Amino acid sequence: MSSDSEFKFLQDLLRPNDSKIILLVLDGLGGLPTEGGDGATVLEAAETPNLDALAEQGICGLHEAAGTGVTPGSGPAHLALFGYDPRRFQVGRGVLSALGIGFDLQDGDVAARGNFCSMDDEGCVTDRRAGRIDSEKGRELCRLLKEIEVPGVELFVEPVKEYRFVLVLRGRDLSPDLGDTDPQATGKEALPPKPGSQEAERSANLVQQFLEEARKKLCGQDPANMVLLRGFSSRPDWPTFQEAFGLRAAALADYPMYRGVARLLEMDALDCGQSLENKIELVKAHWDAFDFFYIHVKRTDSAGEDGDTQTKQAQIEQVDQHLPALRELEPDVLMVTGDHSTPAAMQSHSWHPVPTVLWAKNARPDAVKNFGERVCIAGGLGPRFPTTDLMPLSLAHAGRLRKFGA
Amino acid sequence: MSSDSEFKFLQDLLRPNDSKIILLVLDGLGGLPTEGGDGATVLEAAETPNLDALAEQGICGLHEAAGTGVTPGSGPAHLALFGYDPRRFQVGRGVLSALGIGFDLQDGDVAARGNFCSMDDEGCVTDRRAGRIDSEKGRELCRLLKEIEVPGVELFVEPVKEYRFVLVLRGRDLSPDLGDTDPQATGKEALPPKPGSQEAERSANLVQQFLEEARKKLCGQDPANMVLLRGFSSRPDWPTFQEAFGLRAAALADYPMYRGVARLLEMDALDCGQSLENKIELVKAHWDAFDFFYIHVKRTDSAGEDGDTQTKQAQIEQVDQHLPALRELEPDVLMVTGDHSTPAAMQSHSWHPVPTVLWAKNARPDAVKNFGERVCIAGGLGPRFPTTDLMPLSLAHAGRLRKFGA
Repeated sequence: MSSDSEFKFLQDLLRPNDSKIILLVLDGLGGLPTEGGDGATVLEAAETPNLDALAEQGICGLHEAAGTGVTPGSGPAHLALFGYDPRRFQVGRGVLSALGIGFDLQDGDVAARGNFCSMDDEGCVTDRRAGRIDSEKGRELCRLLKEIEVPGVELFVEPVKEYRFVLVLRGRDLSPDLGDTDPQATGKEALPPKPGSQEAERSANLVQQFLEEARKKLCGQDPANMVLLRGFSSRPDWPTFQEAFGLRAAALADYPMYRGVARLLEMDALDCGQSLENKIELVKAHWDAFDFFYIHVKRTDSAGEDGDTQTKQAQIEQVDQHLPALRELEPDVLMVTGDHSTPAAMQSHSWHPVPTVLWAKNARPDAVKNFGERVCIAGGLGPRFPTTDLMPLSLAHAGRLRKFGA
Repeated sequence: MSSDSEFKFLQDLLRPNDSKIILLVLDGLGGLPTEGGDGATVLEAAETPNLDALAEQGICGLHEAAGTGVTPGSGPAHLALFGYDPRRFQVGRGVLSALGIGFDLQDGDVAARGNFCSMDDEGCVTDRRAGRIDSEKGRELCRLLKEIEVPGVELFVEPVKEYRFVLVLRGRDLSPDLGDTDPQATGKEALPPKPGSQEAERSANLVQQFLEEARKKLCGQDPANMVLLRGFSSRPDWPTFQEAFGLRAAALADYPMYRGVARLLEMDALDCGQSLENKIELVKAHWDAFDFFYIHVKRTDSAGEDGDTQTKQAQIEQVDQHLPALRELEPDVLMVTGDHSTPAAMQSHSWHPVPTVLWAKNARPDAVKNFGERVCIAGGLGPRFPTTDLMPLSLAHAGRLRKFGA
């Protein structure tokens, strides 16, 4: 991919060396004081001796991924962690889903997220997720859709998980400028894939043909007798992570969506299990092959979304126990943070800034002596810094940026 | 008015609901440690149990309206509080004055601030404010000027207060690109209304004709025998507050200038008295009709300008006593701050960041336990944040912004 002026300034300063950077992301890490408790957040309440030691030796603060007051989705928030301003670098869900399952998305392909859904005889959606059919059933239905042929375009239908799949169109002069067919509510008819421009009319027609064939193929199935499509998008022409920062990067993430973001930047998304232990083993095994290791822990976010403070706390404490294994690898820079806050009290992502610690031998420690939302306010990184600051900071502490000017 | 790309990002995230936001502005709130005292600022010295409680439960910080080191006027500072970057959104004093007195300024009108002044026989200004004539005299002289007719343009002359008035030109193809006639010093001749472009030449000529007629009308008057004009401007084409943030807004401000800024954004400037009690009553009476209530308290600033620390402190303490009445309304978000600092020690506006507290049920409280300039430095909003952050922050805490990306 082509380079980009956005990164030009840093690129000119890049100085390669053998340093290693680890970014450990606890999804949805930040929270709010829990109700009925002693006013502590889950992170503050958790027993985290190793994170506390890291905070004492490192530099702390809280970051905002997509600007003040803005609640970011995991996609934009991760792009910010990787140094890409998510307000500028926007990408559709179709592309993220396709990359997330490891689909080899090529330039010019148009990808969409698909849901199997239930429709009544009048064509109104009665269940947008078709009763959340299981993955086995989803794969079976995808095999039916794979049989569809539309002249003038190559089609790919790939299962993701349960009722979700990816549709990819490959061919000449396709446009992703198409509206969702998902009406986002039950009791309504599915929408046509509305073209947003003249160039997209042919693509809209091709998708419409696919939908008509899909209706025939799924006719008689119960409950999943139709599909909904959204997030039509093509792979954007962005600088890769290696082009932007000169780092060979490995992603240790088991969830499709996070693997998708990593692949979008042409990071190497290694096959890994869900456990942090397994991910750390893989980091160790690939230590020489990469400069940057992104490790993702999902369950802190899921627990927050469920309002389950106990599980969230247990997850954080478990990560804390694995921290010595990461430090034993002797990285030059170790960052621990979240992509966004997911307060259990809100059971959703939120706009609240995310606690962060950056450890390096040459970091200038601040007064923060343990790891929590409120103590991080006094940290050297500041109480509300842009998430995209983390990449230049980690490059600096890794000795990978030379002096600017004389 | 047309929409604007500046606000596009937030607009796309807006999610309407029934929440209520209150912004209470103590004009010129911030100060400096008073000389000879115990080193406390006026705000720090004031007894403010209710503001302190708000600070303890909310999130604090200090804001800068027009960038670091810049002392803002009240107009730009208020625009920043309302979410409009004042370095980008600049408006002439003529427009603010006209809107401030409730003049129905239309698109294409050109407005200027007028001063009655004293001139000697050589046409040199001897007093730019004509001995500060009283409002009665001002109105009488305006009646004389209202008689002036200039072919090709409709003229409006409206008294403001004392020696100040507003001149509005209405007609086709007018341009506000005209220089001030006020030489800004005594002993100098008034300047001609110099056109800044070719398109403004006709307008300059029309204003010149008005000035010649004004000289004749005021001839023989003492001390106000002439006028000075400045701040020629037209109503700018900005998104309204409601367009930008999806909020129906009421302004509770008695001073013309602040009503003018509110009207510029098409807020509803309710008729109100000077007392905070009256303003709070009106908020209560209009609670269902609006989503956002801006309440302005002027006397903290006036006292600061007079170097009168006692009055400033008394004013702050009076506001504190009214705070429970505001909280009883159960707003979703309550912000208390100033537009700029007016240290009594300086007797003028200053660049010093302005103490701020934002309270909401879903705010993440910081360690700040009372309301003052220096304790706010440790607040979660940061020690020098852009004033324009307050609008997205209040929208977020009011649940009015949906997630960005997935």
